[in-house]
Amino acid sequence: MLQIPIIKTIDPEISHRAQERWDNLIKPKGSLGRLEELVCRLCAVQHTVIPQVSRKRLVIFAADHGITQEGTSAYPSEVTAQMVRNFLHGNAAICVLSRTLNIELEIVDMGIQTEVNDPSLISHRIRSGSRNFLKEPAMTETEMQTAIQAGIGFAMAAKESGIQLLAGGDMGIGNSTASSAIFSSLLRIDPAEVTGYGAGLDENGRTRKIEVIRAAIKRWDSPSAPLEILRHFGGYEIAALTGLYIGGASEGIATLVDGFICTAAAAVAIQVSPRCKDYLFFSHASAERGYSQVLERLHLQPLLNLEMRLGEGTGAALAMQILDSAVALFRDMPTFEEAEVSRE
Amino acid sequence: MLQIPIIKTIDPEISHRAQERWDNLIKPKGSLGRLEELVCRLCAVQHTVIPQVSRKRLVIFAADHGITQEGTSAYPSEVTAQMVRNFLHGNAAICVLSRTLNIELEIVDMGIQTEVNDPSLISHRIRSGSRNFLKEPAMTETEMQTAIQAGIGFAMAAKESGIQLLAGGDMGIGNSTASSAIFSSLLRIDPAEVTGYGAGLDENGRTRKIEVIRAAIKRWDSPSAPLEILRHFGGYEIAALTGLYIGGASEGIATLVDGFICTAAAAVAIQVSPRCKDYLFFSHASAERGYSQVLERLHLQPLLNLEMRLGEGTGAALAMQILDSAVALFRDMPTFEEAEVSRE
Repeated sequence: MLQIPIIKTIDPEISHRAQERWDNLIKPKGSLGRLEELVCRLCAVQHTVIPQVSRKRLVIFAADHGITQEGTSAYPSEVTAQMVRNFLHGNAAICVLSRTLNIELEIVDMGIQTEVNDPSLISHRIRSGSRNFLKEPAMTETEMQTAIQAGIGFAMAAKESGIQLLAGGDMGIGNSTASSAIFSSLLRIDPAEVTGYGAGLDENGRTRKIEVIRAAIKRWDSPSAPLEILRHFGGYEIAALTGLYIGGASEGIATLVDGFICTAAAAVAIQVSPRCKDYLFFSHASAERGYSQVLERLHLQPLLNLEMRLGEGTGAALAMQILDSAVALFRDMPTFEEAEVSRE
Repeated sequence: MLQIPIIKTIDPEISHRAQERWDNLIKPKGSLGRLEELVCRLCAVQHTVIPQVSRKRLVIFAADHGITQEGTSAYPSEVTAQMVRNFLHGNAAICVLSRTLNIELEIVDMGIQTEVNDPSLISHRIRSGSRNFLKEPAMTETEMQTAIQAGIGFAMAAKESGIQLLAGGDMGIGNSTASSAIFSSLLRIDPAEVTGYGAGLDENGRTRKIEVIRAAIKRWDSPSAPLEILRHFGGYEIAALTGLYIGGASEGIATLVDGFICTAAAAVAIQVSPRCKDYLFFSHASAERGYSQVLERLHLQPLLNLEMRLGEGTGAALAMQILDSAVALFRDMPTFEEAEVSRE
């Protein structure tokens, strides 16, 4: 049986003390805008007014999706394994960013179709890809629980090794179909409004993808409990991300959520454990269709809007930079008194 | 007589070749969104498909404004000199960011009211603050030309020392009043719509600021030529920034524009030399009232929206980070062929 760990409320008193410090630094009050809010919440999460963000880790969960059998993806499932090999060899967008930005990278096989044999790949393989959710639920109850538990385990391990900023990333051909089905079910949005071109469908492909999602939701009689939605339409990497977000919150680690796929996992996590939202930092506004509506429904305002839609955790990595700068300002700027500047 | 230097058109062929490279890198086409556009334009500006951004410089121009005599600012003019001393001692927001992000910082006195004696301060002092523009034009023709020429000189010096990314920053109590008057005149926006609280006015203060701007525009019979608008309402640091943007474009250097004040200077530069726009990268959406309308009128979409309104070039420094990452991705990601990934 899956044990959802306890998540503590964050301490508003610490956030308040952090804002007091911001208000004493030599700048007009509030003039660092969202950087101030970010740091205040980070202080509350870390339970200190001396926040630390130098130790960063990004965990990419990879898995394949049975739904691709319905022709809903522009790329074949083999690409998941090919991309995972590139992650392991340091040859992908997220590898470039993690090197540049000093982020530890972990790559996890949650259920890649073609097995990748590489000692650097962390294996939590559940199955060679999830089930085709038009024909049967994407995961069994046990599979889903195992995947969520694996995600929680990565948050616990991160805490153990002193990680101060955690993020998840995704790789899995077919996972935008899964995510659109999750958003549609969880937030009661028509599939046509929250289904995009994924990695490169044409208009016919997108129409097909919408029809498949619509048919599947009907077939499974519109499940409404968040974990039931995840089990029917999700996938192993998405369930692991849900676990990472719940686990990150439970361990008191500030955790960044990447774009479309990661937000689907986070939306499930927030419905399962609403307190988890206080620990999550939404990175960027994905360019995938319907994402702005998702943000509105969930009352989220991500940090960046660079019209990216790559996945791999690339948006989260860029947002970590902004957090780095915000913390440097908070820590290193002098107060009015220290700097001998008139307050008015 | 001011000589506006020649600005070459940027080469669309190089931008096209850069996009071809992006399309060959292992990611869905276009999935890095605005990072792709940014690098393509950077390539065109630098006239190469191997762009370089490691050498960065930010020049802060400081000056005071006679208009503060009308009670339009929350802080006294002395704060300009106090803040400049802090810049020189490494104690201000922009100092923290430039250290963290490896940006060279230059501080220039264009006309601070209280003279600051410090060997690290670069002096181009024109006068102890501009004139009160409710009573006389803020600058004489010669003063304005001298200030613009100084800004152009900083762009030339940056080119000479191999700077690859240039930015300007501003410090000057009263300069949001000057900038609001410039925007109002240049873009024909009612002063009430483009005048905010500056560094911390209350509602009465803002009403006073609007009245002063409205009266001054009427007093000077609504000047319409961009340099006439600059001369009447601008200030020495704003004119220097206009020169920096024109000079940066003329020297072929990619130049980042910070928030409200810098955009006022850039708006003048673009009206004087429309080609200069291709060389400018707008950093962030300032939270100062009316800025979104300014962006709309100028057809600009800045990179970041963090609700900042601090000045000093802080938004430009943060945007430089994003450019760094974009260039790293463009340079270091492998192509589909190199990585052995199926294209479809």
